[in-house]
Amino acid sequence: MSKELVFGHQNPDTDAIVAAKAFSYLQNKLGYDTEAVALGEPNAETQFALKHFNEPAPRVIEQAGNEVDAVMLVDHNEPQQSVSDLADLTVTHVVDHHRIANFNTAQPLWYTARPVGCSSTIILDLFKENGIDIPANLAGLMLSAIISDTLLLKSPTTTPADEKAVKELAQIADVDYETYGLEMLKAGTDLASKSDLE
Amino acid sequence: MSKELVFGHQNPDTDAIVAAKAFSYLQNKLGYDTEAVALGEPNAETQFALKHFNEPAPRVIEQAGNEVDAVMLVDHNEPQQSVSDLADLTVTHVVDHHRIANFNTAQPLWYTARPVGCSSTIILDLFKENGIDIPANLAGLMLSAIISDTLLLKSPTTTPADEKAVKELAQIADVDYETYGLEMLKAGTDLASKSDLE
Ligand SMILES: [Mn+2]
Ligand SMILES: [Mn+2]
Ligand SMILES: [Mn+2]
Ligand SMILES: [Mn+2]
Repeated sequence: MSKELVFGHQNPDTDAIVAAKAFSYLQNKLGYDTEAVALGEPNAETQFALKHFNEPAPRVIEQAGNEVDAVMLVDHNEPQQSVSDLADLTVTHVVDHHRIANFNTAQPLWYTARPVGCSSTIILDLFKENGIDIPANLAGLMLSAIISDTLLLKSPTTTPADEKAVKELAQIADVDYETYGLEMLKAGTDLASKSDLE
Repeated sequence: MSKELVFGHQNPDTDAIVAAKAFSYLQNKLGYDTEAVALGEPNAETQFALKHFNEPAPRVIEQAGNEVDAVMLVDHNEPQQSVSDLADLTVTHVVDHHRIANFNTAQPLWYTARPVGCSSTIILDLFKENGIDIPANLAGLMLSAIISDTLLLKSPTTTPADEKAVKELAQIADVDYETYGLEMLKAGTDLASKSDLE
Protein backbone atom coordinates (compact mmCIF):
# COMPACT_ATOMS: atom_id res chain seq x y z
CA MET A 1 0.00 0.00 0.00
CA SER A 2 1.44 3.41 -0.96
CA LYS A 3 2.00 6.09 1.64
CA GLU A 4 -0.80 8.59 2.23
CA LEU A 5 -0.80 11.98 3.95
CA VAL A 6 -3.45 12.82 6.56
CA PHE A 7 -4.36 16.43 7.27
CA GLY A 8 -6.98 18.87 8.53
CA HIS A 9 -8.04 22.19 7.05
CA GLN A 10 -6.07 25.35 6.28
CA ASN A 11 -5.57 27.78 9.16
CA PRO A 12 -5.62 24.74 11.43
CA ASP A 13 -7.33 24.80 14.81
CA THR A 14 -6.49 22.26 17.50
CA ASP A 15 -8.92 19.66 16.11
CA ALA A 16 -7.45 19.94 12.59
CA ILE A 17 -3.94 19.23 13.93
CA VAL A 18 -4.87 16.63 16.52
CA ALA A 19 -7.41 14.67 14.46
CA ALA A 20 -4.74 14.25 11.76
CA LYS A 21 -2.28 12.88 14.31
CA ALA A 22 -4.90 10.62 15.90
CA PHE A 23 -6.38 9.28 12.65
CA SER A 24 -2.90 8.67 11.20
CA TYR A 25 -1.89 6.78 14.35
CA LEU A 26 -5.05 4.64 14.10
CA GLN A 27 -4.69 3.95 10.37
CA ASN A 28 -1.05 2.94 10.81
CA LYS A 29 -2.14 0.47 13.50
CA LEU A 30 -4.70 -0.87 10.98
CA GLY A 31 -1.98 -1.48 8.39
CA TYR A 32 -1.93 1.73 6.33
CA ASP A 33 1.25 3.75 5.77
CA THR A 34 0.34 7.33 6.65
CA GLU A 35 1.91 10.52 7.96
CA ALA A 36 0.01 13.29 9.72
CA VAL A 37 0.86 16.70 8.28
CA ALA A 38 -0.72 20.16 8.55
CA LEU A 39 -1.74 22.92 6.15
CA GLY A 40 -0.35 25.60 8.48
CA GLU A 41 1.50 26.19 11.74
CA PRO A 42 -0.32 25.35 15.00
CA ASN A 43 -1.94 28.34 16.71
CA ALA A 44 -1.07 29.37 20.28
CA GLU A 45 -3.73 27.14 21.84
CA THR A 46 -2.57 24.10 19.86
CA GLN A 47 1.07 24.86 20.70
CA PHE A 48 0.11 24.88 24.38
CA ALA A 49 -1.57 21.48 24.04
CA LEU A 50 1.31 19.95 22.06
CA LYS A 51 3.82 21.19 24.63
CA HIS A 52 1.70 20.03 27.57
CA PHE A 53 1.47 16.50 26.17
CA ASN A 54 5.01 16.52 24.84
CA GLU A 55 4.05 15.83 21.22
CA PRO A 56 5.67 17.31 18.10
CA ALA A 57 3.76 19.57 15.70
CA PRO A 58 3.10 17.93 12.33
CA ARG A 59 5.22 18.97 9.35
CA VAL A 60 3.57 21.78 7.34
CA ILE A 61 2.95 21.11 3.64
CA GLU A 62 1.97 23.45 0.80
CA GLN A 63 0.92 20.67 -1.58
CA ALA A 64 0.63 16.89 -1.43
CA GLY A 65 0.88 15.65 -5.02
CA ASN A 66 4.67 15.97 -5.01
CA GLU A 67 4.78 13.30 -2.28
CA VAL A 68 1.72 11.03 -2.60
CA ASP A 69 -1.16 10.07 -4.88
CA ALA A 70 -3.75 9.62 -2.12
CA VAL A 71 -4.72 11.48 1.03
CA MET A 72 -7.02 11.27 4.05
CA LEU A 73 -8.92 14.36 5.20
CA VAL A 74 -9.92 15.12 8.77
CA ASP A 75 -12.04 17.95 10.19
CA HIS A 76 -13.04 19.24 6.74
CA ASN A 77 -14.25 18.14 3.33
CA GLU A 78 -14.69 21.36 1.37
CA PRO A 79 -11.96 21.58 -1.31
CA GLN A 80 -11.47 25.31 -0.77
CA GLN A 81 -10.43 24.57 2.84
CA SER A 82 -8.07 21.79 1.79
CA VAL A 83 -4.66 21.35 0.20
CA SER A 84 -4.13 23.46 -2.92
CA ASP A 85 -3.69 20.49 -5.27
CA LEU A 86 -6.56 18.38 -3.91
CA ALA A 87 -8.10 18.06 -7.38
CA ASP A 88 -5.05 16.04 -8.51
CA LEU A 89 -5.28 13.59 -5.58
CA THR A 90 -7.46 10.64 -4.59
CA VAL A 91 -9.19 11.09 -1.24
CA THR A 92 -9.46 7.61 0.31
CA HIS A 93 -10.75 8.50 3.79
CA VAL A 94 -12.60 11.37 5.46
CA VAL A 95 -13.47 11.86 9.14
CA ASP A 96 -15.48 15.00 9.70
CA HIS A 97 -18.20 16.74 11.70
CA HIS A 98 -19.12 19.50 9.25
CA ARG A 99 -21.73 19.78 6.51
CA ILE A 100 -20.72 18.25 3.17
CA ALA A 101 -20.14 20.87 0.49
CA ASN A 102 -18.58 20.72 -2.97
CA PHE A 103 -16.93 17.43 -2.10
CA ASN A 104 -16.92 15.12 -5.13
CA THR A 105 -14.99 11.92 -5.78
CA ALA A 106 -14.42 9.76 -8.84
CA GLN A 107 -14.40 6.54 -6.80
CA PRO A 108 -16.05 5.06 -3.72
CA LEU A 109 -14.28 5.95 -0.47
CA TRP A 110 -14.34 5.55 3.29
CA TYR A 111 -16.23 8.53 4.74
CA THR A 112 -17.37 8.88 8.34
CA ALA A 113 -19.24 12.02 9.33
CA ARG A 114 -21.12 12.40 12.60
CA PRO A 115 -23.10 15.45 13.78
CA VAL A 116 -21.02 15.92 16.93
CA GLY A 117 -18.89 18.76 18.30
CA CYS A 118 -15.42 17.57 17.26
CA SER A 119 -13.65 15.20 14.84
CA SER A 120 -11.66 13.79 17.75
CA THR A 121 -14.91 12.57 19.35
CA ILE A 122 -15.55 10.48 16.22
CA ILE A 123 -11.96 9.21 16.17
CA LEU A 124 -12.25 8.02 19.78
CA ASP A 125 -15.16 5.82 18.62
CA LEU A 126 -13.07 4.49 15.74
CA PHE A 127 -10.28 3.50 18.15
CA LYS A 128 -12.84 1.69 20.32
CA GLU A 129 -14.54 -0.09 17.40
CA ASN A 130 -11.17 -1.36 16.26
CA GLY A 131 -9.97 -2.32 19.73
CA ILE A 132 -6.87 -0.10 19.49
CA ASP A 133 -5.50 1.51 22.68
CA ILE A 134 -4.89 5.25 22.70
CA PRO A 135 -1.52 6.33 24.17
CA ALA A 136 -1.94 8.75 27.10
CA ASN A 137 -0.33 11.72 25.29
CA LEU A 138 -2.52 11.27 22.22
CA ALA A 139 -5.59 11.00 24.47
CA GLY A 140 -4.54 14.31 26.04
CA LEU A 141 -4.37 15.94 22.61
CA MET A 142 -7.75 14.51 21.56
CA LEU A 143 -9.18 15.84 24.82
CA SER A 144 -7.66 19.24 23.96
CA ALA A 145 -9.34 19.20 20.53
CA ILE A 146 -12.78 18.52 22.00
CA ILE A 147 -12.30 21.20 24.67
CA SER A 148 -11.27 23.62 21.90
CA ASP A 149 -14.14 22.84 19.49
CA THR A 150 -16.79 22.79 22.23
CA LEU A 151 -15.36 25.60 24.41
CA LEU A 152 -15.11 23.19 27.34
CA LEU A 153 -18.45 21.52 26.52
CA LYS A 154 -20.27 24.89 26.57
CA SER A 155 -20.82 25.55 22.84
CA PRO A 156 -24.26 24.83 21.31
CA THR A 157 -22.63 22.21 19.05
CA THR A 158 -21.71 20.06 22.08
CA THR A 159 -23.42 16.65 22.14
CA PRO A 160 -23.63 13.90 24.78
CA ALA A 161 -21.03 12.01 22.71
CA ASP A 162 -18.54 14.87 23.20
CA GLU A 163 -19.18 14.95 26.96
CA LYS A 164 -18.65 11.20 27.21
CA ALA A 165 -15.50 11.40 25.08
CA VAL A 166 -14.01 14.17 27.24
CA LYS A 167 -14.47 12.06 30.36
CA GLU A 168 -13.01 8.93 28.78
CA LEU A 169 -10.02 10.77 27.30
CA ALA A 170 -9.34 12.70 30.53
CA GLN A 171 -9.13 9.37 32.33
CA ILE A 172 -6.68 7.90 29.79
CA ALA A 173 -4.60 11.11 29.80
CA ASP A 174 -4.87 11.36 33.59
CA VAL A 175 -5.72 15.07 33.68
CA ASP A 176 -8.42 17.15 35.38
CA TYR A 177 -10.09 18.31 32.17
CA GLU A 178 -11.74 21.41 33.65
CA THR A 179 -8.53 22.83 35.11
CA TYR A 180 -6.47 21.86 32.09
CA GLY A 181 -9.17 23.03 29.67
CA LEU A 182 -9.37 26.52 31.17
CA GLU A 183 -5.56 26.82 31.05
CA MET A 184 -5.50 25.72 27.42
CA LEU A 185 -8.29 28.06 26.31
CA LYS A 186 -6.61 30.89 28.23
CA ALA A 187 -3.23 30.15 26.60
CA GLY A 188 -4.90 30.50 23.21
CA THR A 189 -6.54 33.77 24.15
CA ASP A 190 -3.50 35.30 25.89
CA LEU A 191 -1.07 34.57 23.14
CA ALA A 192 -3.54 35.54 20.43
CA SER A 193 -4.04 38.97 22.08
CA LYS A 194 -0.31 39.35 22.62
CA SER A 195 0.34 38.53 19.00
CA ASP A 196 -2.32 41.06 17.93
CA LEU A 197 -0.49 43.75 19.93
CA GLU A 198 2.91 43.01 18.46
CA MET B 1 -38.22 13.06 17.21
CA SER B 2 -40.21 13.53 13.99
CA LYS B 3 -40.76 10.65 11.62
CA GLU B 4 -38.26 10.21 8.79
CA LEU B 5 -38.45 8.21 5.56
CA VAL B 6 -35.58 5.91 4.54
CA PHE B 7 -35.07 5.02 0.88
CA GLY B 8 -32.65 3.91 -1.82
CA HIS B 9 -32.26 5.22 -5.35
CA GLN B 10 -34.71 5.45 -8.23
CA ASN B 11 -35.12 2.31 -10.38
CA PRO B 12 -34.34 0.36 -7.22
CA ASP B 13 -32.20 -2.76 -7.30
CA THR B 14 -32.27 -5.31 -4.49
CA ASP B 15 -29.75 -3.37 -2.36
CA ALA B 16 -31.75 -0.12 -2.66
CA ILE B 17 -34.90 -1.84 -1.38
CA VAL B 18 -33.27 -4.05 1.24
CA ALA B 19 -30.81 -1.52 2.67
CA ALA B 20 -33.76 0.84 3.29
CA LYS B 21 -35.63 -1.88 5.17
CA ALA B 22 -32.52 -2.90 7.13
CA PHE B 23 -31.37 0.62 8.02
CA SER B 24 -34.91 1.64 9.01
CA TYR B 25 -35.18 -1.44 11.24
CA LEU B 26 -31.85 -0.58 12.88
CA GLN B 27 -32.64 3.11 13.36
CA ASN B 28 -36.01 2.28 14.91
CA LYS B 29 -34.23 -0.01 17.38
CA LEU B 30 -31.92 2.93 18.17
CA GLY B 31 -34.86 5.20 18.97
CA TYR B 32 -35.64 6.94 15.68
CA ASP B 33 -39.11 6.88 14.12
CA THR B 34 -38.57 5.81 10.50
CA GLU B 35 -40.34 4.02 7.67
CA ALA B 36 -38.59 2.29 4.78
CA VAL B 37 -40.09 3.31 1.44
CA ALA B 38 -38.96 2.96 -2.19
CA LEU B 39 -38.68 5.22 -5.22
CA GLY B 40 -40.06 2.50 -7.51
CA GLU B 41 -41.48 -1.02 -7.61
CA PRO B 42 -39.10 -3.90 -6.82
CA ASN B 43 -37.67 -5.65 -9.89
CA ALA B 44 -38.15 -9.39 -10.54
CA GLU B 45 -35.03 -10.38 -8.62
CA THR B 46 -36.04 -8.31 -5.58
CA GLN B 47 -39.58 -9.69 -5.75
CA PHE B 48 -38.13 -13.21 -5.66
CA ALA B 49 -36.08 -12.36 -2.56
CA LEU B 50 -38.98 -10.63 -0.77
CA LYS B 51 -41.25 -13.62 -1.48
CA HIS B 52 -38.58 -16.13 -0.42
CA PHE B 53 -38.09 -14.41 2.92
CA ASN B 54 -41.76 -13.57 3.34
CA GLU B 55 -41.23 -9.81 3.62
CA PRO B 56 -43.46 -7.07 2.18
CA ALA B 57 -42.23 -4.65 -0.48
CA PRO B 58 -41.85 -1.09 0.82
CA ARG B 59 -44.50 1.47 -0.11
CA VAL B 60 -43.56 3.43 -3.25
CA ILE B 61 -43.40 7.23 -2.94
CA GLU B 62 -43.15 9.96 -5.58
CA GLN B 63 -42.11 12.68 -3.16
CA ALA B 64 -41.29 12.91 0.55
CA GLY B 65 -41.90 16.52 1.57
CA ASN B 66 -45.65 15.98 1.80
CA GLU B 67 -45.01 13.50 4.64
CA VAL B 68 -41.76 14.43 6.40
CA ASP B 69 -39.13 17.15 6.80
CA ALA B 70 -36.14 14.82 7.04
CA VAL B 71 -34.95 11.67 5.28
CA MET B 72 -32.24 9.02 5.38
CA LEU B 73 -30.61 7.86 2.13
CA VAL B 74 -29.22 4.40 1.48
CA ASP B 75 -27.31 3.03 -1.52
CA HIS B 76 -27.01 6.47 -3.18
CA ASN B 77 -26.17 10.08 -2.51
CA GLU B 78 -26.44 11.81 -5.87
CA PRO B 79 -29.54 14.06 -5.87
CA GLN B 80 -30.45 13.14 -9.45
CA GLN B 81 -30.84 9.49 -8.33
CA SER B 82 -32.95 10.46 -5.32
CA VAL B 83 -36.46 11.61 -4.51
CA SER B 84 -37.71 14.45 -6.73
CA ASP B 85 -38.09 16.96 -3.89
CA LEU B 86 -34.78 16.19 -2.13
CA ALA B 87 -33.75 19.85 -2.27
CA ASP B 88 -36.63 20.73 0.09
CA LEU B 89 -35.66 18.09 2.66
CA THR B 90 -32.97 17.65 5.33
CA VAL B 91 -30.85 14.54 4.88
CA THR B 92 -29.89 13.36 8.38
CA HIS B 93 -28.26 10.00 7.56
CA VAL B 94 -26.58 8.36 4.56
CA VAL B 95 -25.26 4.80 4.21
CA ASP B 96 -23.62 4.24 0.85
CA HIS B 97 -20.89 2.48 -1.10
CA HIS B 98 -20.72 4.78 -4.15
CA ARG B 99 -18.60 7.80 -5.00
CA ILE B 100 -19.86 11.10 -3.56
CA ALA B 101 -21.17 13.45 -6.23
CA ASN B 102 -23.18 16.66 -6.10
CA PHE B 103 -24.24 15.89 -2.55
CA ASN B 104 -24.37 19.07 -0.47
CA THR B 105 -25.93 19.73 2.91
CA ALA B 106 -26.66 22.86 4.91
CA GLN B 107 -25.94 21.14 8.23
CA PRO B 108 -23.67 18.43 9.67
CA LEU B 109 -25.07 14.93 9.26
CA TRP B 110 -24.41 11.24 9.90
CA TYR B 111 -22.74 9.81 6.80
CA THR B 112 -21.15 6.38 6.54
CA ALA B 113 -19.60 5.36 3.24
CA ARG B 114 -17.34 2.36 2.82
CA PRO B 115 -15.62 1.19 -0.40
CA VAL B 116 -17.28 -2.25 -0.36
CA GLY B 117 -19.55 -4.13 -2.75
CA CYS B 118 -22.93 -3.46 -1.16
CA SER B 119 -24.71 -1.11 1.27
CA SER B 120 -26.05 -4.11 3.14
CA THR B 121 -22.47 -5.14 4.00
CA ILE B 122 -22.02 -1.80 5.75
CA ILE B 123 -25.37 -2.12 7.53
CA LEU B 124 -24.41 -5.54 8.90
CA ASP B 125 -21.44 -3.82 10.59
CA LEU B 126 -23.72 -1.13 12.00
CA PHE B 127 -25.98 -3.80 13.54
CA LYS B 128 -22.94 -5.43 15.11
CA GLU B 129 -21.44 -2.16 16.41
CA ASN B 130 -24.74 -1.37 18.09
CA GLY B 131 -25.28 -4.88 19.44
CA ILE B 132 -28.66 -5.24 17.68
CA ASP B 133 -29.76 -8.72 16.53
CA ILE B 134 -30.85 -9.15 12.90
CA PRO B 135 -34.07 -11.15 12.41
CA ALA B 136 -33.56 -14.21 10.14
CA ASN B 137 -35.80 -12.89 7.35
CA LEU B 138 -34.04 -9.53 7.26
CA ALA B 139 -30.67 -11.30 7.24
CA GLY B 140 -31.91 -13.29 4.23
CA LEU B 141 -32.78 -10.07 2.42
CA MET B 142 -29.44 -8.45 3.27
CA LEU B 143 -27.73 -11.60 1.97
CA SER B 144 -29.80 -11.25 -1.23
CA ALA B 145 -28.65 -7.64 -1.67
CA ILE B 146 -24.97 -8.58 -1.38
CA ILE B 147 -25.41 -11.51 -3.79
CA SER B 148 -27.14 -9.12 -6.20
CA ASP B 149 -24.58 -6.29 -6.01
CA THR B 150 -21.57 -8.64 -6.17
CA LEU B 151 -23.03 -11.23 -8.57
CA LEU B 152 -22.53 -13.95 -5.98
CA LEU B 153 -19.15 -12.53 -4.86
CA LYS B 154 -17.81 -12.64 -8.45
CA SER B 155 -17.91 -8.95 -9.43
CA PRO B 156 -14.66 -6.92 -9.32
CA THR B 157 -16.23 -4.68 -6.65
CA THR B 158 -16.40 -7.60 -4.20
CA THR B 159 -14.26 -7.12 -1.06
CA PRO B 160 -13.30 -9.46 1.80
CA ALA B 161 -15.91 -7.60 3.90
CA ASP B 162 -18.65 -8.66 1.47
CA GLU B 163 -17.50 -12.30 1.56
CA LYS B 164 -17.49 -12.29 5.34
CA ALA B 165 -20.91 -10.63 5.46
CA VAL B 166 -22.43 -13.21 3.09
CA LYS B 167 -21.24 -16.05 5.31
CA GLU B 168 -22.50 -14.40 8.52
CA LEU B 169 -25.89 -13.50 7.03
CA ALA B 170 -26.35 -16.95 5.44
CA GLN B 171 -25.86 -18.46 8.88
CA ILE B 172 -28.43 -16.14 10.50
CA ALA B 173 -30.89 -16.71 7.64
CA ASP B 174 -30.12 -20.44 7.61
CA VAL B 175 -29.76 -20.73 3.83
CA ASP B 176 -27.14 -22.23 1.51
CA TYR B 177 -26.12 -18.96 -0.11
CA GLU B 178 -24.70 -20.48 -3.29
CA THR B 179 -27.82 -22.47 -4.14
CA TYR B 180 -30.15 -19.67 -3.09
CA GLY B 181 -28.01 -17.02 -4.78
CA LEU B 182 -28.06 -18.77 -8.17
CA GLU B 183 -31.85 -19.20 -7.93
CA MET B 184 -32.29 -15.54 -7.07
CA LEU B 185 -30.03 -14.25 -9.86
CA LYS B 186 -31.77 -16.62 -12.30
CA ALA B 187 -35.21 -15.40 -11.19
CA GLY B 188 -34.11 -11.87 -11.99
CA THR B 189 -32.81 -12.85 -15.40
CA ASP B 190 -35.75 -15.10 -16.35
CA LEU B 191 -38.43 -12.64 -15.47
CA ALA B 192 -36.52 -9.73 -16.97
CA SER B 193 -36.27 -11.59 -20.30
CA LYS B 194 -39.90 -12.63 -20.12
CA SER B 195 -40.93 -9.05 -19.47
CA ASP B 196 -38.83 -7.90 -22.45
CA LEU B 197 -40.72 -10.34 -24.69
CA GLU B 198 -44.14 -9.25 -23.56
MN1 LIG C 1 -11.55 22.71 12.72
MN1 LIG D 1 -13.44 20.24 14.44
MN1 LIG E 1 -28.07 0.06 -5.99
MN1 LIG F 1 -25.65 -1.18 -3.69
